[in-house]
Amino acid sequence: MSDAAQALAERSAAAMYANDRASQSLGMRILETRPGYAKLAMLVREDMLNGVASCHGGLIFSLADSAFAFSCNSHGGTVVAAAAAIDFLAPARGGDELTAVAVERWRSKRNGVYEVTVANQNGDTIALFRGRSHVVG
Amino acid sequence: MSDAAQALAERSAAAMYANDRASQSLGMRILETRPGYAKLAMLVREDMLNGVASCHGGLIFSLADSAFAFSCNSHGGTVVAAAAAIDFLAPARGGDELTAVAVERWRSKRNGVYEVTVANQNGDTIALFRGRSHVVG
Amino acid sequence: MSDAAQALAERSAAAMYANDRASQSLGMRILETRPGYAKLAMLVREDMLNGVASCHGGLIFSLADSAFAFSCNSHGGTVVAAAAAIDFLAPARGGDELTAVAVERWRSKRNGVYEVTVANQNGDTIALFRGRSHVVG
Amino acid sequence: MSDAAQALAERSAAAMYANDRASQSLGMRILETRPGYAKLAMLVREDMLNGVASCHGGLIFSLADSAFAFSCNSHGGTVVAAAAAIDFLAPARGGDELTAVAVERWRSKRNGVYEVTVANQNGDTIALFRGRSHVVG
Repeated sequence: MSDAAQALAERSAAAMYANDRASQSLGMRILETRPGYAKLAMLVREDMLNGVASCHGGLIFSLADSAFAFSCNSHGGTVVAAAAAIDFLAPARGGDELTAVAVERWRSKRNGVYEVTVANQNGDTIALFRGRSHVVG
Repeated sequence: MSDAAQALAERSAAAMYANDRASQSLGMRILETRPGYAKLAMLVREDMLNGVASCHGGLIFSLADSAFAFSCNSHGGTVVAAAAAIDFLAPARGGDELTAVAVERWRSKRNGVYEVTVANQNGDTIALFRGRSHVVG
Repeated sequence: MSDAAQALAERSAAAMYANDRASQSLGMRILETRPGYAKLAMLVREDMLNGVASCHGGLIFSLADSAFAFSCNSHGGTVVAAAAAIDFLAPARGGDELTAVAVERWRSKRNGVYEVTVANQNGDTIALFRGRSHVVG
Repeated sequence: MSDAAQALAERSAAAMYANDRASQSLGMRILETRPGYAKLAMLVREDMLNGVASCHGGLIFSLADSAFAFSCNSHGGTVVAAAAAIDFLAPARGGDELTAVAVERWRSKRNGVYEVTVANQNGDTIALFRGRSHVVG
């Protein structure tokens, strides 16, 4: 990858994150971005737990969805999620440190497919996510 | 449906919601529960917006996922999400009042499939969600 | 619905089916078409069974996918599948007569979402399918 | 991987394929099997084309689904598909030689998640599939 592509990926992520109050308020941190790639982290807070004391599935999805968003916007332009699917493999608990790694599997001019793996601090995979992106504007 | 089934659905929802800090902190409200059915509402707050000033897809998913959880737990027992998929059809904006209606499409002893429709205050469908449940314990 | 819309749905289905060698060779029959709706049937033949004597999941998917295709093309134009998901609920056996009913859940100028229910001759639901369509050309 | 695991993968695939009339009648060939992995090929025949002269999506799905089945049964036991999702990225045409590579992403005692990439003879990815398996019996 070129230096320019890497610089664009970092600039896009910084600009997006600065305005992304949802990812900020959920405490997500960007660990790494590259063209077609993003790695994010999130601590499972007490206010993220559901009625069975596990992290709400929607917030695990949110972490994966943000990683997906940063990776599919890493090439510039404005790209949004058209659809996504998630398999929940194991629960996350309060205090867990989750990491989501998004990888680009395919991309055309208008669409892309990204796979995101969510793991906990022990390296256990807790969810697998796949998103389809759509270029707008 | 019997009065007993309806009472169980309401009791299950109340007990779950009382411990569901995630749904509470996202401002979700239960509008209605019946056996295999739940209707929830959520206001899109400013801290739910992403970098393009739309409601973060993960929080739309969270609303649908909670409606799914209340509907699949309406029969008693402990039921969790095994997998889910969502199609994002239109953006939601700050101040929008979203409603999610979950309907049971199929259920066996161990698994179920639920469909959730998320709409805004104008009645426009903004997302379609399908979840697969799994009985635990 | 208008007579013109119904006539278009029937004309589109007839034209598509005449050239659809795959649906023909799998023995699919169109039972009904309406705007945004299609009902198809298929007999599970011996050459459709997999290694555990059930109908191959891909052929159950094929029936649902054809119903999806006929329903999303019922408005005219050329519409193709962008993505689809299926939940397999119960096996189908040799000699079973399967029916797939496709219903339009949402449609914009360029995309649509359709849900398909596949049942056997006893009315048992054996699969639930959801497809996302995309207008081409 | 051990020789025993490899021998089991090959034995399972041979036994399954011998009884899998659907995969046989669609002309699928097993190119390689390993524990948690399978590679299959299929020629797109004229009787596999749909009304727009592309390979019927259900038959692309069928190839991916068979690769998924061979990979998730490579450890022994009887494993079936619970659910699957596919993104269609590019059409396949008559005469195309498709290859499906299934890789195990996660596995527990009762469930597994497998990703399948379908490509044509030019190496273009035409579909991405993800399947969830379930151990029976």
